[in-house]
This record gives sequence, structure tokens and C-alpha cells, in this order.
Amino acid sequence: MPNFGITNNTEIMKRLSLAAAVLFLALSAMAQQALGPGTGLISPEINPDNSVTFRYHNPKAKVVQVTGDFLPTRPIEVDFGGRKVIYDAPGVEDLKEGPGGVWEYTSAPLEGELYSYSFLVDGKKVMDPSNVHQNRDVATWTNIFTLSAKPGDKGWYYEVHNVPHGTVAHVWYDSPTLNSQRRMTVYTPAGYESNKEHYPVLYLLHGSGGDEDAWSDLGRTAQIMDNLIAEGKAKPMIVVMPNGVWFNQAAPGAAVNNFQPTMANSRSQSTIEIEDSFPDVMSFVEKHYRVAKGYHNTAVAGLSMGGRQSCMLSLHYPDTFGYVGLFSGVGTIEGNEQGFAKVFAYEPKLYFMACGKADGVMANTKRLKEWFDFQGFPATLYESEGGHIWRNWRVYLTVFAQKLFKDTPKKQKAVRMSSNRSSDMED
Amino acid sequence: MPNFGITNNTEIMKRLSLAAAVLFLALSAMAQQALGPGTGLISPEINPDNSVTFRYHNPKAKVVQVTGDFLPTRPIEVDFGGRKVIYDAPGVEDLKEGPGGVWEYTSAPLEGELYSYSFLVDGKKVMDPSNVHQNRDVATWTNIFTLSAKPGDKGWYYEVHNVPHGTVAHVWYDSPTLNSQRRMTVYTPAGYESNKEHYPVLYLLHGSGGDEDAWSDLGRTAQIMDNLIAEGKAKPMIVVMPNGVWFNQAAPGAAVNNFQPTMANSRSQSTIEIEDSFPDVMSFVEKHYRVAKGYHNTAVAGLSMGGRQSCMLSLHYPDTFGYVGLFSGVGTIEGNEQGFAKVFAYEPKLYFMACGKADGVMANTKRLKEWFDFQGFPATLYESEGGHIWRNWRVYLTVFAQKLFKDTPKKQKAVRMSSNRSSDMED
Repeated sequence: MPNFGITNNTEIMKRLSLAAAVLFLALSAMAQQALGPGTGLISPEINPDNSVTFRYHNPKAKVVQVTGDFLPTRPIEVDFGGRKVIYDAPGVEDLKEGPGGVWEYTSAPLEGELYSYSFLVDGKKVMDPSNVHQNRDVATWTNIFTLSAKPGDKGWYYEVHNVPHGTVAHVWYDSPTLNSQRRMTVYTPAGYESNKEHYPVLYLLHGSGGDEDAWSDLGRTAQIMDNLIAEGKAKPMIVVMPNGVWFNQAAPGAAVNNFQPTMANSRSQSTIEIEDSFPDVMSFVEKHYRVAKGYHNTAVAGLSMGGRQSCMLSLHYPDTFGYVGLFSGVGTIEGNEQGFAKVFAYEPKLYFMACGKADGVMANTKRLKEWFDFQGFPATLYESEGGHIWRNWRVYLTVFAQKLFKDTPKKQKAVRMSSNRSSDMED
Repeated sequence: MPNFGITNNTEIMKRLSLAAAVLFLALSAMAQQALGPGTGLISPEINPDNSVTFRYHNPKAKVVQVTGDFLPTRPIEVDFGGRKVIYDAPGVEDLKEGPGGVWEYTSAPLEGELYSYSFLVDGKKVMDPSNVHQNRDVATWTNIFTLSAKPGDKGWYYEVHNVPHGTVAHVWYDSPTLNSQRRMTVYTPAGYESNKEHYPVLYLLHGSGGDEDAWSDLGRTAQIMDNLIAEGKAKPMIVVMPNGVWFNQAAPGAAVNNFQPTMANSRSQSTIEIEDSFPDVMSFVEKHYRVAKGYHNTAVAGLSMGGRQSCMLSLHYPDTFGYVGLFSGVGTIEGNEQGFAKVFAYEPKLYFMACGKADGVMANTKRLKEWFDFQGFPATLYESEGGHIWRNWRVYLTVFAQKLFKDTPKKQKAVRMSSNRSSDMED
């Protein structure tokens, strides 16, 4: 279990008067290479019962609160200019002021998970200065922490353990179709550099607003794969995480003239473009990595927009992906009836759909599953609690990855079909 | 020049009432995959005259300030329990409140540079919620922005341009000497994946409190190398950035049980350990990358503690590094007189020291340079303005990288010396 305690600066902090320490920290924030965890507080602190204590120093604040996905949500009605929408708003709890202006709150005991949180100081968001760990989701930064409540729970898979670690590389490739260099993130499993083996590939696509760093940062792909592979629960595989927004070369700050996160409209050209340009991704990967090629060694999966893209890629290239994962995002039935028939004519090893019961995408997901059932197309539906959130997508990846590349490849059917373009996407 | 403008959410923001928008943003921060740049403000905005406008929304705040390295510093005396130290404190300027609780400040025109800043709201640090770009220096996060004031200035080298991009990989290797897996960051230049060439290697070491991500994140190594190589100003090379703190496997959060940044004491075992364990780094790199081996193809450089480590590595392995860079950190003369004689007996192509005039390390750097001059050892001293800061280290890398691997290799002397261990380091 992680210990977020400060172990190194106790001595130096003791020797400073509080005023000097505060000034020193203010100075060190900018002018010089900063000293280590600087607040003198431990936050968050995971307690023996898996409750978590949050601490924040601010003698002037009137109200200090913590908000995060470790708290139960509460439904809130939002009026979008007449259109009322119910949201599951994150919970908010008050910290209590103690001696020296140190505010504190202790949660209920928590399950193993990766959690996000922020402080609200007199109503405005403030990062926890005692915790250097942060994630960016589209345009929003939050602090994060992981917690293993019991051996083998999902929180454990998101943490770094003493197991062999794979490589995470940020790689640029040429896309002649999109006429630009583009960036992808590539996970190669431990041992890849040391042997001569060829590995199956999972192409893993982010959602609208995400980028090629989303699955590795928010999705904990490297930790999940390292841990699953070390336990023998997943086959060693290459995981390729391209940027699925056709008009973005790369993540904000990594691309020319892309400084702000952008939301790709799911009805925009993006889906068409990923279908047309995906061969650029695959040919780069197959040329530059030791790839075990072919239908039974190739998987595609994605979340939200990436789930819909994975669906469309399976329709567009029905002989390419022996494993397909649609996480909180699916294609439409209408216009794709013949396409899906071709997809299942190849007998995919796994056509996996996953969605949260509170997710707006669930209705279309269930509808597609029922249609598949009616057609006799063998697809799997994995239902979870909760909505359209990373907490679910990490679980779906953990479940999906364990199902990949384990069957003995059957001789692939000799059928060659022309690729079939499907036209429409759900919202 | 970067434009930090918001281009995608204008329409949606217009359709929301302010109250609904604020609530929506609060919700999107946590519960769902968040919408793009969410504040509705442009901050920072780079103006045509290279002044920069900062904006922050908070109707309840009494004082909103901005602090950052774009402002002139001011000297401040800090009392460390009786020991008084003068620091260059970062400048602080007030934002002015305008309609709707939007605070604003516009700087003087700025030079091309990568700048860091934070807001101070009633005295407490707050990140700029309109700017997703942040850097972590040891335990301190700040917002960042880059600015190209004129073509070819240093700010230009820190930005992403339409040039071929190298790969940045986070790789684990075994260190038998330290009995652990350890993580390194490796830059391979554009084209590495596509050809069969062998490349010279620069080993680039971080400072105390840094880690294997420091040079790529704060040092902009990939951008600097991409741009220099594209202009033909630097030779294509591999840049290896290991973790130089022997008791840390990896950066905070990337290693087992390492959740907080740690400061390595420069008088600790760390220097000894890096000397003993450095062959583990080099043998991994030479085994797994296409390395042009040998004295004339191998450079080592580092900042602060990493500069001292580079000095000690050159002393310990005098026949290994044909190029040595000591950035704001050097070894001592005393005890190393014979060692330096051996170092220079190999006729290094470049023994480069760089330091800021306001840096506390300058005195020892100059003393070493004078001793080298007296001994007739050809070393270079690059003096810059300013102190012990990343702004200087990025410049030193930019200058140093252009001097590497350009000489035609002379036949290496047939002398083989036993490695010489040197004992002492400066503070």
C-alpha cells in the first residue's frame, strides 16, 4: 500500500522557523530548483483502515472542502438554456480547521482504486500542494492517489509493483493519408528489448477530448499490462495508442499549434478519417516493431469515441481484427447490417462490449447486443456500475486484456472481402 | 508564436447561462470526461508586442497576484536559524479586478523563453485553470508557456516545430550493481527507427531532487534536439537520461514505494554509487540501441549534482567520455589532481563547464577552470547571467549539444589506464 509520507525533509524543516520556511517554500517554488515535498504536511495519508486523510494549510480560508471521486456522487439538475439534464455531481466534504490553520478531513474506508480529488478553498479549486501526483483529463487537472485495499484488487493493478516493467515510448510516424507527422504512444512488454520474439498488438483508442497520452496517463495502461503479464493473466503484447483525432497531430503541447485540448465531434469527419488513415498506423507499427501479424494477433479497442472508432474499424476492415473491444461507445445498426454480417463471418475470437449501467451510451450498447443476439452474432456484453468515467475504462481494459491472444489460431478462412464502408455513427 | 486562444468551446459557452456554466465546469472537473479548456478565459495570452496577459476569474478574492520567472527577481534575506542567506525571490505583480470578477495583468514585452508562473490568490498558490501546461520541478508544479520573440531565439528551440521528431522512451533496465530495476528516459533522433545507422550517445544527468524525467520535461531535451538536428546544428545522437539518485529506482509515482520527490545529498553515497553502477547503464544502452561506441562517440553531461557526477565519471573512466559537460556543478581539485591529469591525457574533444554568474557554484567552477588553465588542461568555461535555474540548463544543453561529435575521430591512444577513484566532492 502506498505511503505518501514525507521522509526526507523532516530534519531540514525542523531547523527552520515557520516564517522562514513559508518564505523559503515560496521562493523555492520558482527561483531555484525546489526542495522536496514542501508543505510539511502529509496529504493524502492512507490510514490502516483504508480511510484517507486530506490536509491543507491556509489560516486565512473561511471554507476548505475536498471534492473527488472517492466520495459518493449526488444527482444535480443543470439547466442548459431550457434543456434540463441530471448530472451525477461529485461529492463535496468540508475539512475542519485545526491548530495553525491546518484543515483536515478523513474519508470513510475506501475500496482499492485510483482516485482523483481537488480542494475547494472558499469555493475555488486548488491543487493539493502536498501531493505531486496529478492527472490531466482533457483540460482538467486533479490530484490522484492509488490505494490497494486488499491483495489483487483493481487498485493493485494500477500501482507500480516489483515486476518486470515494459517500455512506454512516444513515437512519431508519417501519415501520408493525413499528410502529417503524428504522435503515438507505444507500450512494449518487459523483455521486448532482450529477445527476438514477435508480439501480438492491441490498438487502443482514446475518447473525444483525449489524445495519445490518455490511456497511458489516465488509463494506467503500462501498470495494468505489467501487472497482468507478470501474473500470467495476460499474454505479453504490444499496445499501440495513437491519436484518434484526425486534425490533431499530437497531445496539447506536443504538437505544432496545438496548445489547448480539443473535443472531436463524433459526427465530424474524425471517424471517417481514422478509417482511412488507420493503415498508416498499422504499417508503421508492423514495420518498426516485431509484430506477430494477422487476424488472430491483432486487437482493436477504444473508449467512447474510440469505442465507436473501433466498431467502425472492425466494419471497415473485417478481416483485420480478431479481437474487438467497444468500451462505452458503439456503432449504429442501421446501415451496417451487412457490415456486421461480414465482421462475424470471420468468426472473431472476441467481440466485446462494455458499458456502465449509468452511462448514457448503455441504451445503444444494449440495443446492439440484442440485435447481435437476434442475428446469432456472438458478442459479449460486460456491464458495470457507474457511468462514462475512467474508473470504468481501466476496469474494461483489465478485463479485456486478459481475454486477448490466448486461443490457438485456427486457419483463417480463405475468404477475401472488399472492405465495406459504413456511413453513420451514433451521437 | 503559440496562440493559447480557445477555439472550440465558444459556441457551447455562449449557450450556457453563467451560473449553469460554472456549475457545469465544476461537474465536468470530476464526474465525466471533462470538456475542453473550461474557464472561458484566455490565459496566458501572448500579445503582438510579446507582452503576456494573465487572466483569472474569482469574484470573491481580495488580492490576486501572479508570480513567475518572467518578472524581475528581488533579493530577499532568509534566516535559516541564524544563518542568513540572500535569495533572488521571484517577482510578484497584482492583477486588477475587472467586470465579472475577472482579474487581469499584462507583463512588459518578454524575450523568447520558456516561462513558469503561478497565481497567488489572497496569498495562496493557485494554478491557472485556463492553461493546461504545467511542469513539476522536484515537488513544485507551476504553469508554463513558451514564447518565440524572434526567429531562432532560445524560446524557439523549446517549442515544437514542423521538423522531424525523435522518440522519447521510458525504459527499464537491470542494474546488477544496485540490485534493482531502474528507469531511464531515452531520446532517439528522427529516422532512428527507419535506418540502420549507429549513433553517438550523450548521457545527460539531472540534479539533486530530479529524476529521469527532469531533462525531458523541464529541460525540453526532445524539442531542443529535434530543432538543432533539423537545422543541422547538432549531429543526430541518442540522449540517455538515467535516474542519478542511486536509492531511487525511478521518478515519483513510477517506482515502487517512491511517491514523493527526494533530494539526494551530494555528500551521500550517491556519487560513489553512480560511478560504480554507470557501466550497468552503458551496457544496457550499447546492447539495446544502435550505438556508435568509443571515446569520440560518447559524451556525459549533467546539471548541479549531475554536473559533479559527470566530473566524477570522467575521472573514474578517463578513457570513456570524449566530451564532458559540467553544468552548474563541478568536482573538487583536491585529491583529483592526478585524476584530472589522466582525463586530459586522453585529449578530450571538449571539457565544457557552464555556470551562471549569480550561481553559488560559480566560485568553485572558476577555481577549477583557473587550475585547469594553470595545468595547461584545455577546458572551456561558458558564463551566463543568472543562477542555479533550468533556464540556464536549457541554454547550456543547447550550446553543448552543438559542439558534440563533430570532430573526425583521431585514432584513440593505445594507453589503457586503470580507473581512478576520486574521493571527495564539493557541497
